[in-house]
Amino acid sequence: MRSPSLAGIHAAAEKIASILPETPLLPLEVHGVTVWCKAEVLQPVGAFKIRGAWHRLSDLSPEEAAKGVVGVSSGNHAQGVAWAARRLGIPAIIVMPNDAPKVKLEATAAMGATIVTYDRPGGEDRDEAAARVLAQTGGTLVHAYADPWVIEGQGTAGLALSAQMEQWAGGAPTRIVTPCGGGGLAAGLALACPEAEIVPVEPEGWDDVARSLASGTIQKVGADAPATLCDALQTPATREINFAVLKERCQSGLWVSPSEVAEAQRLAFRQLRLVVEPGGAAALAAVLAGKAPVDGRTAVMLTGGNTDAEAFAKVLAG
Amino acid sequence: MRSPSLAGIHAAAEKIASILPETPLLPLEVHGVTVWCKAEVLQPVGAFKIRGAWHRLSDLSPEEAAKGVVGVSSGNHAQGVAWAARRLGIPAIIVMPNDAPKVKLEATAAMGATIVTYDRPGGEDRDEAAARVLAQTGGTLVHAYADPWVIEGQGTAGLALSAQMEQWAGGAPTRIVTPCGGGGLAAGLALACPEAEIVPVEPEGWDDVARSLASGTIQKVGADAPATLCDALQTPATREINFAVLKERCQSGLWVSPSEVAEAQRLAFRQLRLVVEPGGAAALAAVLAGKAPVDGRTAVMLTGGNTDAEAFAKVLAG
Repeated sequence: MRSPSLAGIHAAAEKIASILPETPLLPLEVHGVTVWCKAEVLQPVGAFKIRGAWHRLSDLSPEEAAKGVVGVSSGNHAQGVAWAARRLGIPAIIVMPNDAPKVKLEATAAMGATIVTYDRPGGEDRDEAAARVLAQTGGTLVHAYADPWVIEGQGTAGLALSAQMEQWAGGAPTRIVTPCGGGGLAAGLALACPEAEIVPVEPEGWDDVARSLASGTIQKVGADAPATLCDALQTPATREINFAVLKERCQSGLWVSPSEVAEAQRLAFRQLRLVVEPGGAAALAAVLAGKAPVDGRTAVMLTGGNTDAEAFAKVLAG
Repeated sequence: MRSPSLAGIHAAAEKIASILPETPLLPLEVHGVTVWCKAEVLQPVGAFKIRGAWHRLSDLSPEEAAKGVVGVSSGNHAQGVAWAARRLGIPAIIVMPNDAPKVKLEATAAMGATIVTYDRPGGEDRDEAAARVLAQTGGTLVHAYADPWVIEGQGTAGLALSAQMEQWAGGAPTRIVTPCGGGGLAAGLALACPEAEIVPVEPEGWDDVARSLASGTIQKVGADAPATLCDALQTPATREINFAVLKERCQSGLWVSPSEVAEAQRLAFRQLRLVVEPGGAAALAAVLAGKAPVDGRTAVMLTGGNTDAEAFAKVLAG
């Protein structure tokens, strides 16, 4: 597999600029400092994943496109792939866990993708489920994070962020705090913003990237990992293509508790008027809890906003 | 009082461009058509009111600025004035109803404004309350809508909207559906977008502008007007400076029911990941309910997103 590159990010950005309006950068005062929130929840599918999916799918050959694509995702990557596939006229099959948020399952189906579920709570392996589909269709797997196109596509958020912060914050970011699942976005941001420290944030008990950074080799999530509302960050382990970038560019990783995440969701509701899903609020949670250092050149990624109404109402109730 | 002008809107836009990042234009599929939502809820104070306030306050003479400003508002104009005043170092007193949403009262106070409340449910007159304050301070009244600077400032949203729709919708808007209280924004949009039909939308029972348009003369809200959650649109009547523009440019006005408003808030939550307050969702409610005609060149203003968590949770619960 080829390595993702800054040149690839620029190529992706050029394609994306003509199809997706740029998401805004919103200032937010936290602990007396203004940090800069990149509102990727405002993408048409409610998450940054549309960037990588568009870059990957629009680079398929006509032969590959005819056989379709297969995505594996709890919902945000799923919607990104489904959105790009519909626009490009490519058949899409999405392998989703049967406990994915309803809003994500419904939106993915509404975009015309075929959904195949697997039993996540029952321990069914998602890669095996995807492999079965791929064997049948001969299609192309669009991995949610271990894919050079996907990493480059997500990196376009970093290019945009830098340009926006140069205009409004007096300079490109020197630190980017970001939710981290498999590390696709984190690696893309690292490549796009070579001057910035990248701070990946994971949910409590799912801090495999933090432990990987600490040990220098890829670690897996423990079999005893607790349930988490951060479904978008529920990845068992990062992969070499991501970790090769992350281990060079991240000093260490952070984790946040469910109550810290909920607090961040409430702050985004009140101060930014944004709906942010638990996983999408992880970076803001780390900032708010004082776990991530901040200054006026710190960017905070708000990565996704697909959450069920009942779940969000519960968060608002505190 | 001078009349608001297109030249004034351009002057305001130039000032605002250096201080406020432009709010995004978000596509939304409704009834099989893509309409374009102007997300003014993403302004730093959560509402478009910051535009008019900035234009007005930044044009005060040093003598006027020293005596301070007085605003009258249930909260969004209040925050706009308070935000601009803090940035410009101008003392601000805001006259607010004692039943304003908590989130609006707190945010206005947090920005350093002095708050004077009046008893709205008890029938106390807000203009009299403001007059008392003005008599004491000799300050400048910044009216929430009957002011040429305020109208011009709000009109900058129309200039931005036109530019954004030219890029993404294939042309400037031919119709703008907008929430309407006193008519400051509606008049500003009309002046900024001379090719567009302006469709003002009011809450049920507060449709004084619709009745004014129908009769050709300014009508007041009835004394028996029902309670409404659209506090931002609870204005007793429009004024001549606004109506002079509106009667030339609006064919008719629309009104929406509380359940139509709540439905629009839920759609914005789910499809746009935006928090929109009841009054801010009135235009989307009219579109969703099929009351306002739509096509691919229709813009929908989402004007404010300041709502209490408990109230929003109730809306989500349906």
